[in-house]
Amino acid sequence: MFDFTSRPGTSAQVQLTPDGRLRHFIDIDGLSQALLEEILDIADSFLGVQQGEVKKVPLLRGKTVANLFFENSTRTRATFELAAKRLSADVLNLDIQTSSTAKGETLLDTLQNLEAMQANAFVVRHSDSGAAHFIASQVTPRVAIINAGDGRHAHPTQAMLDMLTIRRHKGEFAPLKVAIIGDILHSRVARSQILALNILGAAEVRVIAPRTLLPVNVEALGCRVFTQLQEGLEDVDVVIALRLQKERMDGALLPTESEFYRYYGLTQESLAWAHPEAIVMHPGPINRGVEIESAVADGPRSVILDQVTNGIAIRMAVLSMAVSGQTRQRMQASA
Amino acid sequence: MFDFTSRPGTSAQVQLTPDGRLRHFIDIDGLSQALLEEILDIADSFLGVQQGEVKKVPLLRGKTVANLFFENSTRTRATFELAAKRLSADVLNLDIQTSSTAKGETLLDTLQNLEAMQANAFVVRHSDSGAAHFIASQVTPRVAIINAGDGRHAHPTQAMLDMLTIRRHKGEFAPLKVAIIGDILHSRVARSQILALNILGAAEVRVIAPRTLLPVNVEALGCRVFTQLQEGLEDVDVVIALRLQKERMDGALLPTESEFYRYYGLTQESLAWAHPEAIVMHPGPINRGVEIESAVADGPRSVILDQVTNGIAIRMAVLSMAVSGQTRQRMQASA
Amino acid sequence: MFDFTSRPGTSAQVQLTPDGRLRHFIDIDGLSQALLEEILDIADSFLGVQQGEVKKVPLLRGKTVANLFFENSTRTRATFELAAKRLSADVLNLDIQTSSTAKGETLLDTLQNLEAMQANAFVVRHSDSGAAHFIASQVTPRVAIINAGDGRHAHPTQAMLDMLTIRRHKGEFAPLKVAIIGDILHSRVARSQILALNILGAAEVRVIAPRTLLPVNVEALGCRVFTQLQEGLEDVDVVIALRLQKERMDGALLPTESEFYRYYGLTQESLAWAHPEAIVMHPGPINRGVEIESAVADGPRSVILDQVTNGIAIRMAVLSMAVSGQTRQRMQASA
Repeated sequence: MFDFTSRPGTSAQVQLTPDGRLRHFIDIDGLSQALLEEILDIADSFLGVQQGEVKKVPLLRGKTVANLFFENSTRTRATFELAAKRLSADVLNLDIQTSSTAKGETLLDTLQNLEAMQANAFVVRHSDSGAAHFIASQVTPRVAIINAGDGRHAHPTQAMLDMLTIRRHKGEFAPLKVAIIGDILHSRVARSQILALNILGAAEVRVIAPRTLLPVNVEALGCRVFTQLQEGLEDVDVVIALRLQKERMDGALLPTESEFYRYYGLTQESLAWAHPEAIVMHPGPINRGVEIESAVADGPRSVILDQVTNGIAIRMAVLSMAVSGQTRQRMQASA
Repeated sequence: MFDFTSRPGTSAQVQLTPDGRLRHFIDIDGLSQALLEEILDIADSFLGVQQGEVKKVPLLRGKTVANLFFENSTRTRATFELAAKRLSADVLNLDIQTSSTAKGETLLDTLQNLEAMQANAFVVRHSDSGAAHFIASQVTPRVAIINAGDGRHAHPTQAMLDMLTIRRHKGEFAPLKVAIIGDILHSRVARSQILALNILGAAEVRVIAPRTLLPVNVEALGCRVFTQLQEGLEDVDVVIALRLQKERMDGALLPTESEFYRYYGLTQESLAWAHPEAIVMHPGPINRGVEIESAVADGPRSVILDQVTNGIAIRMAVLSMAVSGQTRQRMQASA
Repeated sequence: MFDFTSRPGTSAQVQLTPDGRLRHFIDIDGLSQALLEEILDIADSFLGVQQGEVKKVPLLRGKTVANLFFENSTRTRATFELAAKRLSADVLNLDIQTSSTAKGETLLDTLQNLEAMQANAFVVRHSDSGAAHFIASQVTPRVAIINAGDGRHAHPTQAMLDMLTIRRHKGEFAPLKVAIIGDILHSRVARSQILALNILGAAEVRVIAPRTLLPVNVEALGCRVFTQLQEGLEDVDVVIALRLQKERMDGALLPTESEFYRYYGLTQESLAWAHPEAIVMHPGPINRGVEIESAVADGPRSVILDQVTNGIAIRMAVLSMAVSGQTRQRMQASA
C-alpha cells in the first residue's frame, strides 16, 4: 500500500516529547522502565476500589478520539471505544476500507483530512508492519497516534494490559519467570510482551514453540527458547498461551491443530509442570482444544477475563497520557 | 447455533431479584401485574408534559449499554440506542455476525469478554427462540439482559410499549376488548401482547386469523379465537394489526397477500365493525395494502406513531429498572 | 424511488420560519445576504482563539441529530457527526440502504417513524436531486432538515464552508474575483458556490471548463464562462478546483483524465496566471495529477485543510440555528 521501510528517527524519538513524556504510543521498544510503570500506575488508578470496576472520568471531555481500523477487529475496537468514552471523549468510528480511499484519495490525504477535523487521537489498526509509526512520524504533528496492532510488528496496548494483569496478581516483576507458548512467528503480541517484560525487569522470559513457529534470532529480543513444553514450563510463575493465528498461516512445515495441541496445548496435565501458583493468560480470542483446554481457560488459575477488564484501564491510561503530552508540547511550542 | 432447550428455572426466577425487582427483562411470562404497572408508570414519567416529548435524564450516567444484534433490525436498534442515550448511558453497537465468532470463538466466550468489558446491560436480538433467556441464566451474573426479540418466542418491550399506548389512550385495562389480527403463528409480538393484556386484566383478548396462521392450542395463552374478521372485531376497543411476516413464511397452505387483504385487511370498511372509538395499532413496519389500508394507517384513529414514541420511554424504563436491580443485588451480595 | 418534481412553495418558504429564521437548510437559493452572513458569523464564533480550534459547546445538549445517509459518504458523515457531538447532541447514524425499506416500508413511513423517535434534526444525503426539499416540505413539521448533498442539485453546507474559508483569508467579498474550474455539469458543489458568492456580493464569479462539462445556460446562475484556463484565471483572488466526478461520468464527449489535466489542471505553472496572492481551494477528496498538481495542493497558497476545519464550524452553525428555529416556531404555534 505504501512504503514503511524508511524510518526517520528511532521509536523513542517519535513517541516522546523533548521532555520525555508520551505523545504517541506505537511500540514498547525504546520506552523506559519508569514510563511503563507510570502507564501501569495510571491504569491502576482507573480501576475502582471494588475488584475490577472501571470508573468514568472527565479527563478527555471535549476531545475526540477517532478509531481508524484498516483491519477489522471488533474486540479491540470495542475496548478502545469504551476506554475513550470512559474518559468522556467523543468517539468517531471510521472503517477505512469503505471510505474515500476508494475514490482515489491517498492515505496521506485521508489522514490530513481527519487531522483537520481536529481529532485529538487516532487509534490505528493496520495489517502492514510499521503503519502506525509511519503515520506518527510523517503525517500528524497535532494528533496522538495509538497503535492498536500493525501487521506482525507490535501490539503495545495488549502487552501493557498483560503487564498490568501480571502486576495485579503477582506484584513485583523482579522474581518472575514468564513463559509464552505458541505461534511466536506470527505474533505481534509476543514481540511486544517480550520487550515489556525485559524492560520491567522480569527474572526470565521464555518462549516455547516448535522451530517452525519461531522467528530467526528470536533470542535477540531477550528470551530463552524452549522447544519442549515440559522443560519450558518448569517453575514458571506466569504462563501465556498465544492464539494459533490460523488465518496468517500458509505453509507446509507448520503443525496441524491436533499436532500442536498434543505437543504444546495448555492442559490441566501440562499446566502441572509450571509453578503451583502460576497464573494462566491468553490474549484472546481463544481456540479451545487448539492452544488451550477448556478446563484451564475456565479454571481457577486463569486470569483471561481480568486481562479484558485491565485492557480498558490500560487504553484509558495510554489515551489520556498521549493526548496530554501532545497538548503540552503544542502549548510549549506556541509559547 | 447452541442449545436453548434446557431451561434452568422459570422465567420469573431468572428475571427477578430475590426481593422481587427486575434484573433482566426477557419475557412477559411470569411477571406480576404490579411489576408491569410499575414499568408503565416509570415510562410515563419519561414522557414530558408536552404531548409525547421524551426527556433526557442522568439515570445511567457512567453506565454502558451494549447492543448485541445477532439479527439485523435498524428500527429496534435505533430505539434502544436512543433510549440508552436519553438515560445518559454510553452505547456500544456490536454487529455479532461480523465479530470474532468468525475467528472460532464460541458465543459464551464472546459474551464473557463483553461482560469483562463491564457493560451494565446487553440488549440482545437473536433469531433463535430462548437466546436471551439462555444468556441471562447461564452467562452473566453482572449484566442486565434485555430481550429485543428472540425468534418466534417473545418481544417483551414491544408488548409493553403497546400497553403504554393503550393505557395513555384508553385509561384502565379492565373494561377493554382487544383484537389482534393476522400472522399470530410467526409473531413473537402477539405472544407477548396476549400475556401482557391478560396480566394487566383486559376484559377480553381476541386473535383473528386464518387457521394456518394460528399456533396449535393458542387459546391456552388466554385468548378467544376468531377466523372471521367481522365477528372478531365486533365491539372491540383496540385493534392491533400485525405485520405479515413474509420473510418467515414458507409453505403451501398460507394465504397470498391479496387473499389475506381481502379477508383480514384492516380497511375503513372493516374498521367500522369495531367500536366507534376503537384505536388502531401496528408494531411496524407496515405493509400498506397487505394487512392495513393507507387510509386507516394514516387516519384519525391510528396511534401507530405514538407507539414509536412510547417505545423509547418503555425502553428507558426497562433499562433503568434492570440496571438498578442488578446493582442493588450485587451490592447486597457483597454486603 | 419517489417523485421530487412537484415542488410546493419556493425554497425560501420551506427553509424559513414566518419571522425569517432558518428552520431547514436545503439550498442556498432564496436565502438572503443577511442570513448567509449570520451563518458565517456564528460559525466563526465556534472557531477558537487559536488558529482553527473548534470548541465544544452545550447548545444541543439533550437533542438528537440523526444522520440519514441514502448515499455513502464517510467524510461528510464524519464532519456532521463531529459537529453534532461538539454541540453536545446525541447522534444516531442510520444507513438507510440496509434499513427497513428492504422490508417493504415506504420512505415516508421510515421518516415518520424516525420523527416519532423524536430526532430534532435529520442530516440527509441522497442521490436524487430534490430529496431533502421533498422531505422538508412533506414529511416533518417537527424536525429540522439539513441537506448534506442531493444528486446534482445542491450541497449548501459545502458552499458555506467555502465562503467561511474565503472570508477568513480574504475579508470582504465585494472586491473578489473567484474562479471555479472543472466539472461544473455534475457538481452540486459548484451550483451552491455560485449562488452563495452572488448573494454575498463577490465582484465576479467565473467558471472554467470545457463545454462538455458545463450545464446548458450556466450563465443564468450568475457567472462568466471561460473555456480557456489562462484567460479565466487572469487576476482572480480565489481559485476553486473541483473534483473530476469520474463515477458520475458516462459518455463519449468527455475528456480523458490526461486531457483534462493538460488543459485544465491546476499546476504551479497555471496558478501563476492568477493573482499573486490567490488562495487555492478544493472540496476534496482530491485527484492528484487529474485536476490539481501535488505541489499546488500541498503548497503555501492551498487552504484545502482549512476548508475541512471550517466545515465542522459551518455544520455546527447550521445545525444549531435550524434546531433553534424549529423549536421557536413550535413554541409560537402552541402559544
